[in-house]
Amino acid sequence: MSDTPRLRVLLVGASGTLGRAVAAELGARHDIIAAGSKSGDIRIDITDPASIATALKQAGELDAVVCAAGEVAFVPLAAIEPAAIAESVYGLGLRNKLMGQVNLALAARAQLRDGGSITLTTGILTDNPIAAGSSATMVNAAVEGFVRAAAIELPRGIRINVVSPNVLQESMPAYAPFFRGFEPVAAARAALAYSRSVEGLQTGQVYRVV
Amino acid sequence: MSDTPRLRVLLVGASGTLGRAVAAELGARHDIIAAGSKSGDIRIDITDPASIATALKQAGELDAVVCAAGEVAFVPLAAIEPAAIAESVYGLGLRNKLMGQVNLALAARAQLRDGGSITLTTGILTDNPIAAGSSATMVNAAVEGFVRAAAIELPRGIRINVVSPNVLQESMPAYAPFFRGFEPVAAARAALAYSRSVEGLQTGQVYRVV
Ligand SMILES: NC(=O)c1ccc[n+]([C@@H]2O[C@H](COP(=O)([O-])OP(=O)(O)OC[C@H]3O[C@@H](n4cnc5c(N)ncnc54)[C@H](OP(=O)(O)O)[C@@H]3O)[C@@H](O)[C@H]2O)c1
Ligand SMILES: NC(=O)c1ccc[n+]([C@@H]2O[C@H](COP(=O)([O-])OP(=O)(O)OC[C@H]3O[C@@H](n4cnc5c(N)ncnc54)[C@H](OP(=O)(O)O)[C@@H]3O)[C@@H](O)[C@H]2O)c1
Repeated sequence: MSDTPRLRVLLVGASGTLGRAVAAELGARHDIIAAGSKSGDIRIDITDPASIATALKQAGELDAVVCAAGEVAFVPLAAIEPAAIAESVYGLGLRNKLMGQVNLALAARAQLRDGGSITLTTGILTDNPIAAGSSATMVNAAVEGFVRAAAIELPRGIRINVVSPNVLQESMPAYAPFFRGFEPVAAARAALAYSRSVEGLQTGQVYRVV
Repeated sequence: MSDTPRLRVLLVGASGTLGRAVAAELGARHDIIAAGSKSGDIRIDITDPASIATALKQAGELDAVVCAAGEVAFVPLAAIEPAAIAESVYGLGLRNKLMGQVNLALAARAQLRDGGSITLTTGILTDNPIAAGSSATMVNAAVEGFVRAAAIELPRGIRINVVSPNVLQESMPAYAPFFRGFEPVAAARAALAYSRSVEGLQTGQVYRVV
């Protein structure tokens, strides 16, 4: 088998706990364009469709778009009353981690070469809810649903997958109280799943790193 | 075993294709309060949190809240450009079928007796995407995620489940071109799953009627 070609990869969230590991894994073989709202080669705010459009044009022709960014609010269900609070709690995740990634994926189409890939991020909470995690589970599930459906409609062999890591070892100092009993994975191990998505040929997959 | 007690059930979407079958199934043994935006004993617009609050107060003490309503937009992915179109296509489903049902569930808590139940509706597209169905799959998956997570945080034994029917036989005259090869189920068969949710004891379940 011949060597894999060098790919141009836009990595949103490259400065984060997960993104740094993805940058290390993919950066060993490919050209990484790092992006973030306050850091990176290119500035992008995934909650702002105009910012996404500008950033993707700046990035130029791409073989892969990877998103390792996305926020949700953690609030106990008992504290979420209808109307105002629900709107702010669920609205944050819907605008940021869900529609941020959906709009990034939609915009990526115009920059991706034939057979290029989009890789989004969810997390173990999709299937394993925790206290205060109703928005996280809801939003993650929505992202995975979007990926399942978009995969069958994308043109020119463009692929789309999602990586769903367990809680990261590197995040345990902050997250441990919320993830008792979960088996943390090293960010470097989670990063392998991004390589499977970018360098493999599958589409519509959820790569669970548990 | 003794007879099951007569329950007070608020059924949102009681006049619809699915809702009529649910009303027939549950109405044989229980008291149904029919609700809809233009029909029913009580008026409710699930896209409007104030309307939900008013309707639930009108309904009084309840043993079950069932939602057989919820809209999404069907648009080919190729026609969904970022920004304006994405916002209108995905936004409709997020505000209606997703947050409509989430806000209904949140508001239901105050009216439900101990051990009462909430039953929401998704559909087979959660797991089986079709052309133009990226919003349907995304929104259904989000509803199922919310249910999975809310189930572990609801107080006083209040339960929450979701029913995910295949396309209904009764809807095939209109939907057949989009559901080639799917095996339609009778609305009366789908309605049995609502009975399992309301009259059973499980929580956090997705009852798939395929
Ligand atoms: N950490 C975990 O244990 C874990 C486990 C499973 C899944 N995840 C998921 O992985 C993703 C990343 O998590 P993380 O822990 O690595 O987060 P993190 O350390 O906070 O990093 C977030 C990254 O996203 C960028 N970013 C933040 N807001 C942005 C915006 N609006 N637009 C574009 N980029 C933005 C940040 O860069 P700037 O500051 O420059 O914007 C940063 O590079 C999240 O979706 C998270 O839910 C994390
Ligand atoms: N039909 C199928 O084959 C099928 C299969 C799987 C899943 N489903 C799902 O089942 C649900 C019902 O589908 P259906 O085919 O029965 O729909 P339908 O025949 O159009 O009925 C919709 C029902 O919801 C009510 N409604 C509409 N908008 C509302 C609002 N904003 N607030 C409160 N109530 C509202 C309507 O009453 P008013 O006119 O009085 O508002 C009506 O009773 C949908 O979520 C659908 O996705 C349907």
